[in-house]
Amino acid sequence: MKVEAGLNEDGLSGNGYAKWYAPVRARCSGSHARDADSGNPGELRVNNTLVRGTTVPFAPRDGNKVLWYTCGPTVYDVAHMGHARAYLTFDILRRVLEDYFNYEVVYQMNITDIDDKIIVRARRNELLRRFKERASSAKVSAADVGERVVDAAGKALAREKEKLEGLKLELEKVPGSSKEGALLDTAIKEQELKLSQAEDAMARAKAAVTELSGDPSSPEKLQAVLESAKDSLAESLDAEEGHTIAGEKGEDHTIFREHATKFEGLFHEDMENLGVRPPTILTRVSEYVPQVVAYIEGIQNKGFAYESNGSVYFDTRAFVNAGHEYRKLEPMPASQWEDIKGGKVAAEEAGEKKSQMDFALWKKSKQGEPAWSSPWGPGRPGWHIECSAMAGDVLGDNLDIHAGGEDLCFPHHDNELAQSEAFCGCKQWVNYFFHAGHLHIRGLKMSKSLKNFVTIGQALKEHTANQIRLLFLLQNWDRPMLYSDQMVDDAKAKEQMLKNFFGTVKGLLRETPPNKYGGVPQNWHEDEQKLSEELSVCKSAVHSSLCDNFDTPRAMEAIFALVSSTNKYINRGKGDGVRVMLLLNIARYVSLICRTFGLAEDSDSIGFGGSTGDSSGGASEGLLNAFVSFRDQVRKLARDTGNRDLLELCDSVRDDVMPGLGVRLEDRADGSLYKLDDPAVLLAEIATKKKKQEEAAAAKKQKKIMRMQKDLLKWESVSEDLFQSDERFSKIDEESGMPVAMADGKPLSKSLQKACQKALTKRKKERDELDRLGGEDYIKGLREELEKLSM
Amino acid sequence: MKVEAGLNEDGLSGNGYAKWYAPVRARCSGSHARDADSGNPGELRVNNTLVRGTTVPFAPRDGNKVLWYTCGPTVYDVAHMGHARAYLTFDILRRVLEDYFNYEVVYQMNITDIDDKIIVRARRNELLRRFKERASSAKVSAADVGERVVDAAGKALAREKEKLEGLKLELEKVPGSSKEGALLDTAIKEQELKLSQAEDAMARAKAAVTELSGDPSSPEKLQAVLESAKDSLAESLDAEEGHTIAGEKGEDHTIFREHATKFEGLFHEDMENLGVRPPTILTRVSEYVPQVVAYIEGIQNKGFAYESNGSVYFDTRAFVNAGHEYRKLEPMPASQWEDIKGGKVAAEEAGEKKSQMDFALWKKSKQGEPAWSSPWGPGRPGWHIECSAMAGDVLGDNLDIHAGGEDLCFPHHDNELAQSEAFCGCKQWVNYFFHAGHLHIRGLKMSKSLKNFVTIGQALKEHTANQIRLLFLLQNWDRPMLYSDQMVDDAKAKEQMLKNFFGTVKGLLRETPPNKYGGVPQNWHEDEQKLSEELSVCKSAVHSSLCDNFDTPRAMEAIFALVSSTNKYINRGKGDGVRVMLLLNIARYVSLICRTFGLAEDSDSIGFGGSTGDSSGGASEGLLNAFVSFRDQVRKLARDTGNRDLLELCDSVRDDVMPGLGVRLEDRADGSLYKLDDPAVLLAEIATKKKKQEEAAAAKKQKKIMRMQKDLLKWESVSEDLFQSDERFSKIDEESGMPVAMADGKPLSKSLQKACQKALTKRKKERDELDRLGGEDYIKGLREELEKLSM
Repeated sequence: MKVEAGLNEDGLSGNGYAKWYAPVRARCSGSHARDADSGNPGELRVNNTLVRGTTVPFAPRDGNKVLWYTCGPTVYDVAHMGHARAYLTFDILRRVLEDYFNYEVVYQMNITDIDDKIIVRARRNELLRRFKERASSAKVSAADVGERVVDAAGKALAREKEKLEGLKLELEKVPGSSKEGALLDTAIKEQELKLSQAEDAMARAKAAVTELSGDPSSPEKLQAVLESAKDSLAESLDAEEGHTIAGEKGEDHTIFREHATKFEGLFHEDMENLGVRPPTILTRVSEYVPQVVAYIEGIQNKGFAYESNGSVYFDTRAFVNAGHEYRKLEPMPASQWEDIKGGKVAAEEAGEKKSQMDFALWKKSKQGEPAWSSPWGPGRPGWHIECSAMAGDVLGDNLDIHAGGEDLCFPHHDNELAQSEAFCGCKQWVNYFFHAGHLHIRGLKMSKSLKNFVTIGQALKEHTANQIRLLFLLQNWDRPMLYSDQMVDDAKAKEQMLKNFFGTVKGLLRETPPNKYGGVPQNWHEDEQKLSEELSVCKSAVHSSLCDNFDTPRAMEAIFALVSSTNKYINRGKGDGVRVMLLLNIARYVSLICRTFGLAEDSDSIGFGGSTGDSSGGASEGLLNAFVSFRDQVRKLARDTGNRDLLELCDSVRDDVMPGLGVRLEDRADGSLYKLDDPAVLLAEIATKKKKQEEAAAAKKQKKIMRMQKDLLKWESVSEDLFQSDERFSKIDEESGMPVAMADGKPLSKSLQKACQKALTKRKKERDELDRLGGEDYIKGLREELEKLSM
Repeated sequence: MKVEAGLNEDGLSGNGYAKWYAPVRARCSGSHARDADSGNPGELRVNNTLVRGTTVPFAPRDGNKVLWYTCGPTVYDVAHMGHARAYLTFDILRRVLEDYFNYEVVYQMNITDIDDKIIVRARRNELLRRFKERASSAKVSAADVGERVVDAAGKALAREKEKLEGLKLELEKVPGSSKEGALLDTAIKEQELKLSQAEDAMARAKAAVTELSGDPSSPEKLQAVLESAKDSLAESLDAEEGHTIAGEKGEDHTIFREHATKFEGLFHEDMENLGVRPPTILTRVSEYVPQVVAYIEGIQNKGFAYESNGSVYFDTRAFVNAGHEYRKLEPMPASQWEDIKGGKVAAEEAGEKKSQMDFALWKKSKQGEPAWSSPWGPGRPGWHIECSAMAGDVLGDNLDIHAGGEDLCFPHHDNELAQSEAFCGCKQWVNYFFHAGHLHIRGLKMSKSLKNFVTIGQALKEHTANQIRLLFLLQNWDRPMLYSDQMVDDAKAKEQMLKNFFGTVKGLLRETPPNKYGGVPQNWHEDEQKLSEELSVCKSAVHSSLCDNFDTPRAMEAIFALVSSTNKYINRGKGDGVRVMLLLNIARYVSLICRTFGLAEDSDSIGFGGSTGDSSGGASEGLLNAFVSFRDQVRKLARDTGNRDLLELCDSVRDDVMPGLGVRLEDRADGSLYKLDDPAVLLAEIATKKKKQEEAAAAKKQKKIMRMQKDLLKWESVSEDLFQSDERFSKIDEESGMPVAMADGKPLSKSLQKACQKALTKRKKERDELDRLGGEDYIKGLREELEKLSM
């Protein structure tokens, strides 16, 4: 008798029961298991920039928890697709880690909202605005404006010319075919472009000034002059007046904050539109300045930083001589290394730094720049320190993953590593460094300075978020990515293929609902066995591709192959029909992978979805938002104008209409908040509330009835004569109503007389009151009302 | 300098780059790693019935692929919650394997559609139908019908009495307090119930017959008689006429097929309504008879089966003597074991079998039963063989998982194992046997015979599929499950807690959309650090719970704890607001786990979902109706009261909001009408309309300008003197303005004089008009207005 392959020979004999042969799991095939130290089949291996030339097994330090820090945007302008390359790419990797490999990712991203670019942009915008104001209100004459603009354009032109000359001189010094020569060639081409742009600006400025001089009071012509060489004008204004911004000591941050807030908002909106998962925590420098200062002090205390002229610099030489490694990501030539160690780098070249290699941790603020107070005087954080300080504050002193665009390797990431390893006194602050490849368009890296960028907003006008994501999935995350019409068209075709496939399967499922399963053949023939095998092959391929450094192009290839085979099976036109359960399983798997990659709209949906409870059966969120917002506006108008009818209408929508639609609407001072729930639950709640209200109303009515009954009794007795039927007395004075003789004929005692007089006086008062109320008619009215109420 | 804990001491030095210290992954905490042979942290361990008393590591044989066979239903009646216990439970386990652990599950389930219960039910229903037909068409007289029914009821009554007597006699033979005695006690109670039901039927029958005898032609009264003791009547008809069904040689399968098809359809519908994933492949016996026959032949060829009287039996003794183990799941006493080996079981007790232990693989069909041809004559498969044959055909000769309700351990699963291990000649056909615990209701197992069952349809009328699933998730899959009001109420309360949580987070997210992220604080304080830590703890707990034999109650507990902490954080009422990104991450994770467990409606959705393409945006009709109706009422109020602000608000909803939602709203006298269309189409329409309006306005303006220019020309000429610069004349009379001499000094002709006089009169009139309009000032005004318009 054979022992099955893949079962242990030695059976495990449990408590006198039969033997059990523990299965031996076969190794997954696939290139992810290409290394000898890869012990686990299906183990994830990644491209770690800290280890070049090979992938390494991915192992977070603390169980399944992954501490991940990604360098976020500097919010000085709108983001373009070059930025999306990093954030969307890391979103895909994060989703695979979280939703496929079940890692617990804590994803931190920073927002650089204190930065030279932001400072300059915000300040120049403000100066331009002020100058325009002065020009428009004729505080500066038209002639002066013109002169000023032409002068600025001229200076800019001269600068660009000078730069070009310089580059050309440099080129003459290097061998024509050298690498340096090629780089200079490119730089010259770029500089020529810039020069020609400066020439254009100058021409525009001159033409506009001529126009204005012919008609100096025309606001349009003035505007044209101001716009003609705006950037040069702003630069020249900045040189002269920049110092007047930001207050005496840089304490006025208003315009810088506003600028950063605006572009941060736009960035988040772009990310949302691209379907990028928001980070677990977002840290912006402006909220972490005290931590940054403390971090710098920490480095200084360890002897790896020094103050110089109000700024603080990282001491590279001290760091290296203490046995640390500098420039782990982008190593420098060994000779340079020795120069650092030996301190040979000439101090005179380094200015206020000890060595040219040293970099700023804290920068003394100049006039016109925002400043924060510090032990070294007013200043602001250097570029690199924020990441070390904020990641350290949130994630601690050993990160699993640090990610960013590949251009950040040096100086940013290398300096970050140096700072953090200096601060923590450790050898390795980051275990895995992920660098996304650049986005290339028409053969060049997409960038702001080359003006070849497409903003995310523009891209999303032409393509859907899903198409863009597919485009990213079809290329490897760590290689240069091509953004071309052909690639986009390919992604669109692939999306259409998936859509068609889903549509076909859904159609077949509608044709054969579960209650009809019993009536159609279900047994498998060769075609089904084969297709099932293809599903299995696809699953293996997807798994091993994802294990192999997140190879999404290969995973998608496997998905497309499965879709293609399934289409062939559906259209094969032979046999006894298709097996819808098999198709359902295939479509479900394809959907699951699409959802894992963030391709499905519901991939990040919150709650039970559908009509199960917290969402109302396909209630379009947009429609509901519009409805609620319209009602909020109507309600505000109604309250402002005291329109009761309108208020009641609004209440009725909330109480009588919305619950049946599964919407719980709660009015608050500043508009309403809605929650979705099961209509049955909401209606039951309303019914309970109504019942309580009814009960309260009934109790109130009962109380009113009792009060009226008491009143009625009182007034009825008041209307009667006081001693008429009092058997104690035998005679009553008709006019005054006073008893004059007791039952036995004797006169009343003094005290009884007094009491009777008092009672009569009281009754008289009561009678008067009753008369004022309406006398007998009033009592009749009371009686009738009571009767009506009691009905 | 310290080396980080959790990093290898020996750095890996890549190609002359810096050293990299490979992280060492800490072991997950959690009871799943409680065994020494559990090498991987976070490894799944399962309760395998083949190894009692401990859990074992789960290891499929072929990479990530899991071959899973589940014993499906015998489709003779509607399914109850006791059935759901198995199928819903395995659905949860399957989802966790597929969607959480990323296993590739091939899930096979059978449908037993050839079976004694089906045969008897279908045949009796058919005989009853035929008898009713005969009675209704008076082929049998009313008196004969009555007699027949009472006779059948009487016989049934006698049978139940006899059974009760028998049980009582047996009880006298056993010691009162023995286990056997207790069992007999229960059986007697059950039998007493059955007897009383038979007595009731008899009473009903007699009453109905008396009624009928008084009015023999009443169809209603005939019907009442036929229904009064239906089961007994059917049984009696079966005994007499059963052999006439199914054709001469059992070749007519119609009524059996129809019966099975109907209840199979209902079963699939129930499963769909419970949200149970359909199997990858569904195998029904009726479609696999040839494979079953071949399988039996295979066993026979190996010497483990023998034919006897047209049936085929499994040869237990031969099997055991060949070194195989029999009854792995429910072992028998060692003595009995020796009896088998020695062949001591007396043949006379076994009838046509060699031993009482032997069981049928193929059953010779009797008259009135459907039959399939075979080498052993017409017959049908035994109960156990179908699973061996069909699982073997689809999944092969070694399954990873075989699942079923715990009552199937013996004889069904033990016999299945014997058959398959005999056929394959292997030691272990199934590596993991999963047995779901029974469903208990009021202390008893829910079952058909105890009549304490709740059908799935009934349960789904009282509770939602989600509530039922939560009830299952809150109890361990392999233990007895309680189905009580308290447990259901608990599940409902937990569902409400989740719904409230999702609703709150969604509300907060709506309040702070991404484009507002920039304006609110994002930095973490202690509360956020703590909550983030709770998320991490929850994720670990969920993971280790699922690894620990699919412990869903413990996983849900962790989820509820996280929800509770998050609610506390939201409602803590201190600090600078909540961090919505953290909340989003928490809600997304809770949703992901709910979806993994099948709690979310979209957990099995196919395609990209939402409005991304393959599904239509889904504007809820009810919501739209409510919105439009509310706006109509507001608009009416606005018109009645002449409230312009409100009217403008209503117009803005129609023109600016609705089109983007795909709604074309048209206001009419008696309320509005809406039509649905593509938002793009509607927005394009609005744009076109606006453009036309603008063009019309521009044309109107142009016309006005032209008219004014004409006017201006006219009045400018009017203001000039008539003949002053007319070169025809040499002298003009200053006072009257009349020319008095031609250029040549001659006087004017009579006719010319007349014409000039006429012209002068006309100009005088025009002058007067111009003066009335304002004279030169009027002209100046015209000129200025024209200038403004032309700008």
